[in-house]
Amino acid sequence: MRIDGLQYANWSEKIFRQLREGGVDAIHVTISYHENFRETVLNFEQWNRWFERFPTLIMKGTTASDIDVARSTNRTAVFFGFQNPSPIEDDIGLVEIVHTLGARFMQLTYNNQSLLATGCYEAHDNGVTRMGKQVIKEMNRVGLVVDMSHSADRSTIEAADISERPIAITHANPHEWSPALRNKREDVIRAVTQNGGMLGFSLYPHHLKDKTECTLESFCQMIADTAAKYGVEHLGIGTDLCQDQPDSIVEWMRVGRWSKEIDYGEGSASNPGFPPMPQWFKDNRDFGNIESGLAAVGMSADEVTAIMGGNWYRFFSENFGPLDS
Amino acid sequence: MRIDGLQYANWSEKIFRQLREGGVDAIHVTISYHENFRETVLNFEQWNRWFERFPTLIMKGTTASDIDVARSTNRTAVFFGFQNPSPIEDDIGLVEIVHTLGARFMQLTYNNQSLLATGCYEAHDNGVTRMGKQVIKEMNRVGLVVDMSHSADRSTIEAADISERPIAITHANPHEWSPALRNKREDVIRAVTQNGGMLGFSLYPHHLKDKTECTLESFCQMIADTAAKYGVEHLGIGTDLCQDQPDSIVEWMRVGRWSKEIDYGEGSASNPGFPPMPQWFKDNRDFGNIESGLAAVGMSADEVTAIMGGNWYRFFSENFGPLDS
Repeated sequence: MRIDGLQYANWSEKIFRQLREGGVDAIHVTISYHENFRETVLNFEQWNRWFERFPTLIMKGTTASDIDVARSTNRTAVFFGFQNPSPIEDDIGLVEIVHTLGARFMQLTYNNQSLLATGCYEAHDNGVTRMGKQVIKEMNRVGLVVDMSHSADRSTIEAADISERPIAITHANPHEWSPALRNKREDVIRAVTQNGGMLGFSLYPHHLKDKTECTLESFCQMIADTAAKYGVEHLGIGTDLCQDQPDSIVEWMRVGRWSKEIDYGEGSASNPGFPPMPQWFKDNRDFGNIESGLAAVGMSADEVTAIMGGNWYRFFSENFGPLDS
Repeated sequence: MRIDGLQYANWSEKIFRQLREGGVDAIHVTISYHENFRETVLNFEQWNRWFERFPTLIMKGTTASDIDVARSTNRTAVFFGFQNPSPIEDDIGLVEIVHTLGARFMQLTYNNQSLLATGCYEAHDNGVTRMGKQVIKEMNRVGLVVDMSHSADRSTIEAADISERPIAITHANPHEWSPALRNKREDVIRAVTQNGGMLGFSLYPHHLKDKTECTLESFCQMIADTAAKYGVEHLGIGTDLCQDQPDSIVEWMRVGRWSKEIDYGEGSASNPGFPPMPQWFKDNRDFGNIESGLAAVGMSADEVTAIMGGNWYRFFSENFGPLDS
């Protein structure tokens, strides 16, 4: 079983076919960066059209059992998430509404301060806000997973502790392996995994040691080391694959509508666009490379299975439904 | 089994308890008159709160099988609908979105011309519009029932013919029994029922012969006569009960935001508010009166069961899911 914990591609029939070639059974896709509720609904609508147009390649995923259906019919189950809480605006009632529409992950922040918590690019981290505490409780109730991939450290640790259900960092790597701002320090990973949460390893070059030049062996050894440290059961893949996106999209991701000035995020003035992917993971057809790379650094078959999808499957099955079911 | 094809009460614990006292297994409730998409979502949110607060009395209904669950747990299943297509605005993609959120009926018009068809108060009826034809097709695809209760005759007949699935007039009576503008002429009822559709008999006094003074016997004899003429299998109840609403609500229903002048609709300057209900049907506890009234005018036990809920149950079971399932 292969499950990817985060993608934001420029979706097309080509990519849907590559998902099938790569044997990807399920993906969590971002459908909102800065969109408000109505704009996010337009993105749900766009996916409805894709499901209608490509019913033999993809299907909407809302529960882990949809992954079983997808596997038995040779399709990829697509689960929705947001990288910002902008889709719920200032309205806690929208948490259940977006869950009913199919959202299964929501970041409490993107890079900036949100109504709920602090993003990783802010100078000061005030932790989870008043509304943030209420929204975490409501997300727990309906089965919308708290994702802290882009949040600041204190906010992330607080969210892991406040949440009655496990939370996720769907796409990031350990800071000690590659000291990017977006990668996570030990106490953050500890807080998330100790509470039953998940870390998805990112292939986005800015999160990799040596970026685009990162070797498959280094990436896989980092996974084995992280498994030894925090427990293999808390780990999965979250490639952050942004395939076929024009550079205008990475600008939208970083700047949205919040700034009149350019913000380069993890890039720079001399390298403002999407960085090239490593040779051994260019698109969805390359999941087999990671799978064999993990075996090559000495992980057992069971461990490899868990990392490649088994852990996400268990996490999906336990966290996408109402609290009392 | 008792199913009510339309209510728009000022919902409260009192009314939910009366639904249980009256043995009402399912109701179709209006959650939009003139609301746009975002405002309609707020109404879905309000119902989510009621489901959370009163889980032993009511539950959300989306399929006919939810009525079985409601019956076996002594609750009322609540199905949602709109009396106007305003919730989908000018966006056909919202048809599937509102269906996902739980909408199961949508009128193509309220009293006025809409983007989709002509309402019964317009001077000229142009029939189903270009967008209306596309929306009917999409409603058919996802399982959102076309309701023409407030639409003009030509539009209704065209909708019944264009729709690939049966349509409904959830709340109205035959014009020949009571010549109200909102009641339906023979060719309209014929077009709807011939295509497998349903007519729900209204208890709203303006739709009754002698209004508030209408007798139970007259109402039940009218039902028996309509069954003889069009077939009992196409008939149900759609009380249009607007219990506990202040008169400001009937003004909102009639005027919305479309007019700066007052429009009295079925009322008048001297009688602008909600009319009093007949003595034998004041609220949800009185469904038993209709049931015995139908037997008293000579309908068989099977016919009474069909009218009181069996027909709506069959209609729900056949029309709330995707076309191909």
